[in-house]
Amino acid sequence: MKEIPRGGVLSAPGFKAAAHAAGIKSSGALDMALIVSEVDAGVGAVFTTNSIKAAPVKVSMKNSRNPVRAVIMNSGNANACTGLQGLQDAKTMVAETAAVLKIKPKQVLVCSTGRIGVPLPIDKIIPGIHQLASKLSRRQGAACARAIMTTDTRPKEYAVQVEIDGKLVTIGAMAKGAGMIHPKMATMLCVVTTDAAIDRGVLRRCTFDAVERSFNRISVDGDTSTNDTVLVLANGLAGNNPLRSYHPQLFVFKEALLAVMRKLARAIVEDGEGIQHVIELRINGAANHRDARVMAEAVARSPLVKTSWAGGDPNWGRILAALGYSGARVEETLIDVYYDGLCAVCHGEATQTPTSELHKVTQKPSYTIQIDLHLGRGEYKLYCNDLTEEYVRINLGE
Amino acid sequence: MKEIPRGGVLSAPGFKAAAHAAGIKSSGALDMALIVSEVDAGVGAVFTTNSIKAAPVKVSMKNSRNPVRAVIMNSGNANACTGLQGLQDAKTMVAETAAVLKIKPKQVLVCSTGRIGVPLPIDKIIPGIHQLASKLSRRQGAACARAIMTTDTRPKEYAVQVEIDGKLVTIGAMAKGAGMIHPKMATMLCVVTTDAAIDRGVLRRCTFDAVERSFNRISVDGDTSTNDTVLVLANGLAGNNPLRSYHPQLFVFKEALLAVMRKLARAIVEDGEGIQHVIELRINGAANHRDARVMAEAVARSPLVKTSWAGGDPNWGRILAALGYSGARVEETLIDVYYDGLCAVCHGEATQTPTSELHKVTQKPSYTIQIDLHLGRGEYKLYCNDLTEEYVRINLGE
Repeated sequence: MKEIPRGGVLSAPGFKAAAHAAGIKSSGALDMALIVSEVDAGVGAVFTTNSIKAAPVKVSMKNSRNPVRAVIMNSGNANACTGLQGLQDAKTMVAETAAVLKIKPKQVLVCSTGRIGVPLPIDKIIPGIHQLASKLSRRQGAACARAIMTTDTRPKEYAVQVEIDGKLVTIGAMAKGAGMIHPKMATMLCVVTTDAAIDRGVLRRCTFDAVERSFNRISVDGDTSTNDTVLVLANGLAGNNPLRSYHPQLFVFKEALLAVMRKLARAIVEDGEGIQHVIELRINGAANHRDARVMAEAVARSPLVKTSWAGGDPNWGRILAALGYSGARVEETLIDVYYDGLCAVCHGEATQTPTSELHKVTQKPSYTIQIDLHLGRGEYKLYCNDLTEEYVRINLGE
Repeated sequence: MKEIPRGGVLSAPGFKAAAHAAGIKSSGALDMALIVSEVDAGVGAVFTTNSIKAAPVKVSMKNSRNPVRAVIMNSGNANACTGLQGLQDAKTMVAETAAVLKIKPKQVLVCSTGRIGVPLPIDKIIPGIHQLASKLSRRQGAACARAIMTTDTRPKEYAVQVEIDGKLVTIGAMAKGAGMIHPKMATMLCVVTTDAAIDRGVLRRCTFDAVERSFNRISVDGDTSTNDTVLVLANGLAGNNPLRSYHPQLFVFKEALLAVMRKLARAIVEDGEGIQHVIELRINGAANHRDARVMAEAVARSPLVKTSWAGGDPNWGRILAALGYSGARVEETLIDVYYDGLCAVCHGEATQTPTSELHKVTQKPSYTIQIDLHLGRGEYKLYCNDLTEEYVRINLGE
């Protein structure tokens, strides 16, 4: 697998894009993006599990069942909790995009991100779509990655190349997300493009699996948004034998797709709102997989644990308290806790490890906390971060 | 029911107390308290549901099965996650208290609150117990309420009087708690004393019911501590006919006990760490009671909702998102949301209510948010508060 320097959503052949500042963001920054595939592209898609879904999610859920040609996106407004008008607006975005590109509405997907509950400024968006269509090129990938940002401090792009059936296959992607991040899924959008030829059902399963092991393993604040969407568009131009479940090199594609999503998931945590520390949280020896997940999520969303991380304080007592109320099975006298391999807790009690040594770890911008339960074979890994005063400032609102 | 001005844990006859600064808190503030009943007192007790329980909780759970004579308490150290030594230390506190008071160890309850995972400074506590025993009086109630404070900014006391069988019955209490507050129970301690004569089983049920409707209906940060304890001591000196389940005035006692606990629960939320706004959150019309509770707790622990409250921002979109991921049944198009009676959301969409009007409500130090689901008869009420930069500063650690 080869990383493509400065690669992104336009690294794979056959895709064009454009970004535009339509005035949805009051700052005047880029706030619209359009990704177009020259030929029909198969779709793998995973949407938010929130039972309140934004209008664009509802529209894209329907249209992603068929091959598509385009994805129209805006930031600055989530078009969520906007009722029938919101649904109409999402459909208008799709219809207008289809009209200017001379394709069918059902060949267009739509994503929105930003504030919830505010009507979409459709009068700014329609001219924006025309602008985007007139600017489509192979060079606007980086601009698109910026156009979908909300509280992100930097764009998130990544691309890799692998060889399948002797053909070069490219997988490139862009993502956004910095707050409202918790399994299942984050307030995040991710568009992956690839020229791989791949069976529709296989692409769906690969997408689901990769999301499960990347974007569903990150936690910023425990909130799950109404708009989360991961789209994988595969246009087949690489010319490999179509990837079906029995293809001997399917694993190569799966690994590459996972690598791309993991890279972007990690980038989202590292760009978490107000973040100062990234923690890789590993749960080992839980009674079962579900318990391991439940404990990881309880620790990752505890405000007390997260503020102690912000303070660089190895306050493992708060971690044990979170394990205790998680609902998972725990035996206090069996718990071990390690900070970057340094044993802080053994059999549920403080070890002789000097606090000064633990401090050296917890001051680092990124470190690992491993929790061994010694109850079974349940394991889980989660990337998460701290809760800082800056996070609060960012989210105070207007 | 009559409120006793400046009433507290010593309002009921037959109880004495003392407070002492033993040097557990580095600030030199009061950090130990001893409550003594002149005669055997029946016990109603509710302890943390955290499966990792502090040593004093383990000891008190056992001793609360019988009538008791004393409660020994310390702040500044939770004696939690301290292993066998911690358990030994809690037992030593009990034994030493019993020895100086010339009672049996099983007649003593013990509570600790403060940092988790640090060995208890038992060498400071033992002389402290002797000091406390020598200072016992009827006037140290307010000092005790201060001695159990940790991040609390003010002591919490309350007492009422009711008439049962023509006799005056007094119920007085003190509580502490400001962080790690979430149903089930808070990082909180509460000691209630009463001179009511009451059957042991009835006292337990009354205690459980009152806790369920008071301390289990508050949320500060979604964390549940290892040390939570509510103790009700009833010494029977009022001379009423013992309250059994068929006593015609049992409801008078129950209402008074609930009133005392609700007052203190509310005081804990109002003193929440870094708090600027108290929100009374009402869920109506949920599919069932469980769904109503699940939704209230999802809203109350969402960092995004809580930071918008801190910003005085009527950002109901974040509330709808939290309802959506709570796991409870929701129909977006049926949801109504009211801020102090002002309708902000009707059928899942913004109403014409001017944002400036909603702002007037969300700027207030205390207001009500009511959410109508229109799905069934499930109801729940929760007191909660906002998440401020100050909360983060308080909890950064060392």
